Amino acid sequence: MSATAPPLNPTPRVLMGPGPSNVPPRVLQAMALPCIGHLDPDFLRIMDELQKMLRRLFQTRNRLTIPISGTGSAGMETCLVNLIEPGDRCVIGVNGVFGERMSDIVERCGGELVRVEAEWGRAIDPKQVRKALRRGRTKLVGIVHAETSTGVLQPLEEISELTHDAGALLVVDTVTSLGGHPVCVDEWEIDAVYSGTQKCLSCPPGLAPISFGKRAVAALRRRKTKVPSWYLDLTMLQQYWGQERKYHHTAPVNMIYGLYEALRIIEEEGLEARWARHRDNHEALVKGLRGIGLKLLPRPDESLWSLNAVEIPSGADDAAVRRRLLEEFNLEIGGGLGPLKGRVWRVGLMGHSSTKNNVLLFLGALEYVLKTL
Amino acid sequence: MSATAPPLNPTPRVLMGPGPSNVPPRVLQAMALPCIGHLDPDFLRIMDELQKMLRRLFQTRNRLTIPISGTGSAGMETCLVNLIEPGDRCVIGVNGVFGERMSDIVERCGGELVRVEAEWGRAIDPKQVRKALRRGRTKLVGIVHAETSTGVLQPLEEISELTHDAGALLVVDTVTSLGGHPVCVDEWEIDAVYSGTQKCLSCPPGLAPISFGKRAVAALRRRKTKVPSWYLDLTMLQQYWGQERKYHHTAPVNMIYGLYEALRIIEEEGLEARWARHRDNHEALVKGLRGIGLKLLPRPDESLWSLNAVEIPSGADDAAVRRRLLEEFNLEIGGGLGPLKGRVWRVGLMGHSSTKNNVLLFLGALEYVLKTL
Repeated sequence: MSATAPPLNPTPRVLMGPGPSNVPPRVLQAMALPCIGHLDPDFLRIMDELQKMLRRLFQTRNRLTIPISGTGSAGMETCLVNLIEPGDRCVIGVNGVFGERMSDIVERCGGELVRVEAEWGRAIDPKQVRKALRRGRTKLVGIVHAETSTGVLQPLEEISELTHDAGALLVVDTVTSLGGHPVCVDEWEIDAVYSGTQKCLSCPPGLAPISFGKRAVAALRRRKTKVPSWYLDLTMLQQYWGQERKYHHTAPVNMIYGLYEALRIIEEEGLEARWARHRDNHEALVKGLRGIGLKLLPRPDESLWSLNAVEIPSGADDAAVRRRLLEEFNLEIGGGLGPLKGRVWRVGLMGHSSTKNNVLLFLGALEYVLKTL
Repeated sequence: MSATAPPLNPTPRVLMGPGPSNVPPRVLQAMALPCIGHLDPDFLRIMDELQKMLRRLFQTRNRLTIPISGTGSAGMETCLVNLIEPGDRCVIGVNGVFGERMSDIVERCGGELVRVEAEWGRAIDPKQVRKALRRGRTKLVGIVHAETSTGVLQPLEEISELTHDAGALLVVDTVTSLGGHPVCVDEWEIDAVYSGTQKCLSCPPGLAPISFGKRAVAALRRRKTKVPSWYLDLTMLQQYWGQERKYHHTAPVNMIYGLYEALRIIEEEGLEARWARHRDNHEALVKGLRGIGLKLLPRPDESLWSLNAVEIPSGADDAAVRRRLLEEFNLEIGGGLGPLKGRVWRVGLMGHSSTKNNVLLFLGALEYVLKTL
């Protein structure tokens, strides 16, 4: 018989949207290595080395540092479902889609949700967090380090101090910052952190690196109720990734290969050099945009290097511009979400996609398209 | 700087354990295709074709037929968390690890768990299911079609009739049967079904195909409470896989490529030819085992073709035999779980691993190892 579906032939793109970013050939080749068993001694060695690389990437000594078998959102859900028990008060910073998502999950866990809001495009004000913490005994503060929907970078050190002074745990979303911006888990005393593979790590989507510190592990141990998700239950997952090697679910072996190689590439470049590259290309983009009369939505001191929310000039047709960039230049950028739909383009300069060449290509292509609309 | 972790170099193995099975080179090459955006028009076409192939594989017209972004266990959790609300009575067949796992998830969802048990190595008796259904109004019956921990195949048609007579939904685990045994979702009136990619589909682990029929979709619509998991919430996932294309989470693009190619290979072989191959190689294995004085734990009429639970002969050291098969022949088989630890070896003949050559290799290697212990 013959297959009814056509052979796969995805058009190669320049990925400058909110993720995935372009994946280096070495990572793709790693994913094509022979699949082996999830308890094979060779695979166990790969797991150990992977954990060591993840700890260096997160800049932490946390033992419980593993990739969750799902995308970044599964990482968010893992951190929250393992820490929240019904009735727990949770203060969540909401200034974009991902703070909204955290809030949604808090409610599904039966937590008491306290929202601390900021305008989309601005960082959360630590004073507001302090106020919210004073009004009741709080289990955790959830905050987005890099808001992919708005391009805003959130300073964390002051919020971390406030959170710990109030005896709460700090949970941080670093999906769009890890590997592109400094993320210093131990120094900033982040208790639970998650990320995704398809942004500044330049591995395909499918895994969510997470790390739990001592206080978070203690909170997990003190739970009176079972974690509501079996699949994401860290009390069991840590026995597979730990010395027990107890079977939980079958690890996504070839995705793990991909992440392993992506992390090796990061170590070859060096974290500081990688951050500097992300910063330099972001600054070049901002300058170039200014040259054609465009600017970013966030303030310069609150702008991400990895994800640039560009204000759409009046008169430009959002969808038409994005479609032409894709069709004429094979260049993907993202549209705005929620209240920013039609107001911003989201231009990623993440991981392998953060290059001088891509900055020039995007500026040239955008200028051409805007002139010929 | 240089990477501290060694280059990846997993030893290629003959995978005859409980999964993963060997992955054909075409699938591995598909996974190494360029990653593109999860809303790219090329990717949306791939999603549509993939859904059509999944429907043919499940033998269903169910619109809500999609791959969940996690492994088979995430598929189990998806079916249960979307259907169960607190207080719902759930009758679960328990005759191995995966019935136990379903039971665990039912309790985490706040369902009222009613266990119908059978000895590990035997199928669930439909009479016991009928008895359990008579004792109270039931939301769903959960049953494992292919118990990977015991090698037992569960007949489903009688249980399906009983379940629907009682007004309940039938949820079926086909992780180890889909693609190796007939799975006729519409004909058998299965309401919700899940599987995994790394068994008879011979794609690496990382996705869980699921399908929801009309009654299950209606139950989902009638929910009074939110689905407890955000990541696995089908009310949102179906808007990404449906015509709305509404962003939920970033799809694991390259895993989807792998599954797409694995399904094309299945369509080229033809489902009936594939089932016959699995049956023939299973029968050859059973005959060969008989020749060296060994037999399977389950009864012949309840034995899976895809996963063979071989009784360990007295005097043979379980772990030593498996270690020697791996070290001397690069051949992976599985050990027993729970009460079957030390009592059975689990020998998979799944997907690409179900070949005459593998049957001969395994028999020869096992005989040699047993003689030279």
